[in-house]
Amino acid sequence: MSEPPEAKAQVEAPAEGETPAQSKKGAKKAEAKAKKEAEKAKRAAERLAAEAAQKAASGSGEDVGKDNYGDATIEAKHINAERIYLKNLGKDHVGKTVKLRAWIQNSRMQGAKMAFFELREEANWTIQALMGVDEQKGVSKQMVKWAGALNSESFLLVEALVKEAPEPIKSCRVKDFELQISKLYVEAKAPAELGLTLAAANKAISSFEDTDPVQGMKDLSVTEQTGGAPSASLGTHLDNPVMHKRAPLTRAIAKVRMTVRKLFAEFLDANDFEQFEAPCLIGAASEGGANVFKLPYFETDACLAQSPQFYKQFEIAGGAKRVYCIGPVFRAENSNTPRHMTEFTGLDMEMEFEEDYSEVRNMIESLMLYIFRGLEEKCSEQIELIRSVYPSEKFLLPEAGKEVRLTFAEGQKLLREHGPEEFRNVSDDEDMSTPQEKALGALVREKFGTDFYVLDKFPESARPFYTMEDPKNPNITNAYDFMMRGQEILSGAQRIHIPELLEARMRRKGLDPASPGLKEYVDVFRSAGVPKHGGGGIGLDRVVAWYLNLPSVHLACAYPRTPKRLLP
Amino acid sequence: MSEPPEAKAQVEAPAEGETPAQSKKGAKKAEAKAKKEAEKAKRAAERLAAEAAQKAASGSGEDVGKDNYGDATIEAKHINAERIYLKNLGKDHVGKTVKLRAWIQNSRMQGAKMAFFELREEANWTIQALMGVDEQKGVSKQMVKWAGALNSESFLLVEALVKEAPEPIKSCRVKDFELQISKLYVEAKAPAELGLTLAAANKAISSFEDTDPVQGMKDLSVTEQTGGAPSASLGTHLDNPVMHKRAPLTRAIAKVRMTVRKLFAEFLDANDFEQFEAPCLIGAASEGGANVFKLPYFETDACLAQSPQFYKQFEIAGGAKRVYCIGPVFRAENSNTPRHMTEFTGLDMEMEFEEDYSEVRNMIESLMLYIFRGLEEKCSEQIELIRSVYPSEKFLLPEAGKEVRLTFAEGQKLLREHGPEEFRNVSDDEDMSTPQEKALGALVREKFGTDFYVLDKFPESARPFYTMEDPKNPNITNAYDFMMRGQEILSGAQRIHIPELLEARMRRKGLDPASPGLKEYVDVFRSAGVPKHGGGGIGLDRVVAWYLNLPSVHLACAYPRTPKRLLP
Repeated sequence: MSEPPEAKAQVEAPAEGETPAQSKKGAKKAEAKAKKEAEKAKRAAERLAAEAAQKAASGSGEDVGKDNYGDATIEAKHINAERIYLKNLGKDHVGKTVKLRAWIQNSRMQGAKMAFFELREEANWTIQALMGVDEQKGVSKQMVKWAGALNSESFLLVEALVKEAPEPIKSCRVKDFELQISKLYVEAKAPAELGLTLAAANKAISSFEDTDPVQGMKDLSVTEQTGGAPSASLGTHLDNPVMHKRAPLTRAIAKVRMTVRKLFAEFLDANDFEQFEAPCLIGAASEGGANVFKLPYFETDACLAQSPQFYKQFEIAGGAKRVYCIGPVFRAENSNTPRHMTEFTGLDMEMEFEEDYSEVRNMIESLMLYIFRGLEEKCSEQIELIRSVYPSEKFLLPEAGKEVRLTFAEGQKLLREHGPEEFRNVSDDEDMSTPQEKALGALVREKFGTDFYVLDKFPESARPFYTMEDPKNPNITNAYDFMMRGQEILSGAQRIHIPELLEARMRRKGLDPASPGLKEYVDVFRSAGVPKHGGGGIGLDRVVAWYLNLPSVHLACAYPRTPKRLLP
Repeated sequence: MSEPPEAKAQVEAPAEGETPAQSKKGAKKAEAKAKKEAEKAKRAAERLAAEAAQKAASGSGEDVGKDNYGDATIEAKHINAERIYLKNLGKDHVGKTVKLRAWIQNSRMQGAKMAFFELREEANWTIQALMGVDEQKGVSKQMVKWAGALNSESFLLVEALVKEAPEPIKSCRVKDFELQISKLYVEAKAPAELGLTLAAANKAISSFEDTDPVQGMKDLSVTEQTGGAPSASLGTHLDNPVMHKRAPLTRAIAKVRMTVRKLFAEFLDANDFEQFEAPCLIGAASEGGANVFKLPYFETDACLAQSPQFYKQFEIAGGAKRVYCIGPVFRAENSNTPRHMTEFTGLDMEMEFEEDYSEVRNMIESLMLYIFRGLEEKCSEQIELIRSVYPSEKFLLPEAGKEVRLTFAEGQKLLREHGPEEFRNVSDDEDMSTPQEKALGALVREKFGTDFYVLDKFPESARPFYTMEDPKNPNITNAYDFMMRGQEILSGAQRIHIPELLEARMRRKGLDPASPGLKEYVDVFRSAGVPKHGGGGIGLDRVVAWYLNLPSVHLACAYPRTPKRLLP
């Protein structure tokens, strides 16, 4: 049986109807409400009609197929046949009756006696299946009619005969085989209209617009409700987590994310780092009071950790030579940009060193290169798919032995001498702005052919109080940033392990060493001798977003948290 | 050179002086304050004297050793010799000059010309080292005096000659070799008196008493300040994180903990589970409103997640067949017991199933057995060490193929028929109390020879709204607990994947399906067909505490959070 001509209409329909509405909010709200109510009524009517039809069919006493289809949402149905998975389907299966579970990706009736389906397993294994009336074989007219009326994204239990496709089926991933359905039960139903179609979920977002109220799901820039438009806003994606997640695009990004996380742990495990868990609830803001979430905690207040910095150091002080931790960190920053979130995942490490902090810096450099090379190897398929939606240039890495390490002063000199006009006067004593970073990234790419490099020896003013100054020059520090496509991806340094020095540096920065949280921190270094150490922390979300050149860090994360979004 | 007789005095001194004070709080406070101030003054005087002595020595112009010792806390000192690690030390090193970094575990002077040290590397690699005046070799009288006055737990850079020990050194782990020191620099200093000695840190806690105020470090049951008592309260341990962590006991527990975590991920990775990250900040209390931390969140409120339950299900709904996550969960419960914490680590998994939820139950059973068997294999040394401090019986596992799975009703029957008198009337329709659980655990151990078993088919009243009822009997559910030493360690179930059923069950439990958080949850199941699924969640802290039979779950955790403790 060859591919029916209209089978892929729903998924690949070109843009039709309105572009995202730009009209005033009031009008949009009213329109959306009216549309919603109309749809609700329509759906209710459809449901009643379908139920009546099924009742009539099964009640007539003439349905020879009545045991071969129907509802299996609660009472399980069982099929006694070989369980197959589409990715393993081969010539050996031809002529066999098999069993599978799959979503309806598309379906249509051809006349009254034949239903066509595209069935989907996992993210993107699809196969063509058909069901034709055949009373001898227990496939009744009622059964076909019922099956043809099932909604896309319903989840099915299917018995079918595997057949060779007479010609390759272009619309499906399984091209050489098709299924002739003999039994079909619905294990979970989908609604008549989806909040976000799979096709739209798999396209680049149309805008960064998100919901207005934190508690609501009322994205007004919905372009999908009418089924016509080709893409949806970020808000529509996030309000429809199920369909957003079913898109191969979303799954590919998730795979890249979790691979970064795994490669991070893998490298550090192999280099004798011990994992530990830092707490989220802490008694005082660990790194200054800005951007800290506070909460009532029994008779006092607690803060949410902004980083595991102090705890990594406590582990080193406690005798672990090398540690890492992976966990959530929080920033109460009211920034509604594609670069900000209030909760993100920190990948943090800390280690003793022997002679010089460059041991730490070089360890982190090797770690990052391991991650980037691992991504190329383990996620090439996913990266290619993501690039087809969100284009990006290949992420250039330095040749082994030719890693690029510039001092901050060298970087500034490069900017002054070869950068854009506006950066001809940048200073060695002040931190860089984002545009400066990007300009320097472009210069480094041009000059050294890499998108990844290290900037070392930051000025004192640019680093927190626990950063060790260069013993030879107190205006610069033993601190480094790691850069990706011209943006900072990791910040790290040698830490101060001498309590007197730590207190002096706190005072220089205007902090009180006796204040809650800081006192306990300094006490740790006073309580016993703590070896010299340093480390760094990576924001997982940013690594993923920037490696893939995603337009928003919110796309790199399963459940992004912003000032305007806490649900679902 | 043989072992000096008093070398191990500080670490292994037997119990002397007071037992933990039981007197009234006011008196204790005053006493503690006075003691603290006296100590402070004493320490300051000592410091001044030591500095003056060193200054005099180095200023005399006669110190032939002056370049071979001193401060290296900021300006690094470098030694040009082979870097050795104690665990690798062997006969090949004898006669060689080597370099190492280590803590002073103990030291003492023998006359004015000889200093003895026990040096420690990592948690428990110790070696005897000595430094005798030898002006020819650049070891001056001043140098020996200075070195002999260094405090225990200072961190050193050492150059030394490796020698064979004339007789085995009993007090050190390295028994056959000793070091003759030629250079010694202090990279980090320790105080004259430790808040907690290593010996005490390595003993069982003397009491569960913790600090009074959340923000303070004023544990009043300190038994260590005078150096005499053999053990310390939980509060003293937690107020002295550095010394607490340096104890091999603490490190052994941490190793067991992180091994459970790793084995969990390892088993699930091998069984095609995908890891994901659930958010901590959520817009509404996910599982009823009790025991939820709330915080101001820009223009609204946020809650801290009590479990990743909803998010695991969203992942399954989104097309992942099997998922797991590892992360912090929070309970705002004002319980000050050794069993409660406000933040702990959840190990959670969820999976689609095909025919029956027992597929999920059996997967989790295999997972737990994998973890327990892995612990025996990978942590036998640590478990033995922990047992020497906190005794526990061997954790009995069922033979392969003889796993114990009881229904809740069977468990209750066992209790009624063979349990203690007071449980002769337990009902099949009500959840068990902790004493009932423990009694049943004892019966199962006696009857089946295992400390680990599954209790299945819990009564409806005992389970949350999202638990699937048995389709054949709505009074029981497709829900199970996993038991360890008679205590619940994992709770899990088949979940409801049908939105109408979910709403009905919410109403039955007195919840409003339209309330914030619940509405978005039900919407997920309405938005597309979601396959049948189930899962479970383990509290990592409890698994560790109960496997090791620790007297408090707070000992299983690096930074326990309780209503009274948020620092350090």
